[in-house]
Amino acid sequence: MANAPSQRTRVQRNPSRGAYDRETIDAILDEALVAHLGFAVDDQPYVIPTLHARIDDTVYIHGSAASRAIRTLSAGVAACLTVTLIDGLVLARSAFHHSMNYRSVVVLGDARPVSEPAELLSVLEAFTTRLVPGRWSEVRPPNAKELKATRLLAMNLDEASAKLREGPPVDDEEDYELDVWAGVLPLGLVAGEPSPDPRLGAGIDPSPSVARLHQALNTSNSPEADGAYGASIRR
Amino acid sequence: MANAPSQRTRVQRNPSRGAYDRETIDAILDEALVAHLGFAVDDQPYVIPTLHARIDDTVYIHGSAASRAIRTLSAGVAACLTVTLIDGLVLARSAFHHSMNYRSVVVLGDARPVSEPAELLSVLEAFTTRLVPGRWSEVRPPNAKELKATRLLAMNLDEASAKLREGPPVDDEEDYELDVWAGVLPLGLVAGEPSPDPRLGAGIDPSPSVARLHQALNTSNSPEADGAYGASIRR
Repeated sequence: MANAPSQRTRVQRNPSRGAYDRETIDAILDEALVAHLGFAVDDQPYVIPTLHARIDDTVYIHGSAASRAIRTLSAGVAACLTVTLIDGLVLARSAFHHSMNYRSVVVLGDARPVSEPAELLSVLEAFTTRLVPGRWSEVRPPNAKELKATRLLAMNLDEASAKLREGPPVDDEEDYELDVWAGVLPLGLVAGEPSPDPRLGAGIDPSPSVARLHQALNTSNSPEADGAYGASIRR
Repeated sequence: MANAPSQRTRVQRNPSRGAYDRETIDAILDEALVAHLGFAVDDQPYVIPTLHARIDDTVYIHGSAASRAIRTLSAGVAACLTVTLIDGLVLARSAFHHSMNYRSVVVLGDARPVSEPAELLSVLEAFTTRLVPGRWSEVRPPNAKELKATRLLAMNLDEASAKLREGPPVDDEEDYELDVWAGVLPLGLVAGEPSPDPRLGAGIDPSPSVARLHQALNTSNSPEADGAYGASIRR
């Protein structure tokens, strides 16, 4: 499952940080909650945060946050979708070698609008399920009017690459003598207590999907905890 | 301190979510650890994750992760810098109204390379200090060779806008009757235990800056905790 990197997707700076296998690419895409979609209008690039979901070889972008993107990209211009996970602050003995541990994916290509109702529905389910596994069957499904109002774009993963940094700081050899603490401060996204809608009816507890997700992402988890998003807290 | 939005930066979709005051824009830029920089080469947009730091009316971008960007943007083409903070999953009673609470900023304009040594040095200090307050004075400062190898870009904030969503889900009126838990699962970036460099000398404890930051971002903090990044866990 390896893409050969194209000239455009090959990581040029720090090439050892590049990865082109779909297993790595898919895992990063699937863990990231937000994507940044780039497109140009009249030579001005725009970068818009948007929700995304991957199904097999396609990454879908939710258009509700990016109607300018939808209009532009439906005409078939080139796009770039980038996701980035922050894993830690890299604290070196010199200011210069401070860095960040991260995992990112860049996808290049055209984006096609999704209009077929069955594809729309399956993608909407994927959006919900990848954010909150199990939620889809708990809530009211989309009706015809909502499906009609939904705008989705699709990009395939033919031209994608990952770039990541992990591990401890890399200092200049002579700086290892310095009496300065160095290492990594791991960072990751965690969940707080579910906050009920003020209009929630009496006696309705968090549904199983919400309780499970909160448990998986609980702030009381140790930073080594592995889980949907917790995996991004690494050492 | 309000920018008048330009036609290009005015939030077009859900305009009530737009904000153009510099206080809001600056706070989001300053809290975000990573920016996404967009630029186009031969009509292909690229979106690259990069570190950034704001000083007054300028946002600086660290070029080490974006040498293609540096080459391209030094020639004076248009750029877009976007940062996004994830605050929570918005869990509605219908699949369609699921959303995310977030705060984002988009900055449009040309990027100029920074070459004056005094500006370079002050920006490098800002990069370190905004990630780890107090760290700069604990570590070896940049030497002449490192300053020469540093590539920075600067964009001013004349044409910037913020967009954010906060608060509970907004369901269709008839759906409030449904027996489905609805609300927000707050999310935010927190820190785990500092992980020492395997080459750390014996008896060197985390320096005051690292200990303070870890404390501020500790996973045992309640999600209401306010702090450098902890503020992003909201209700």
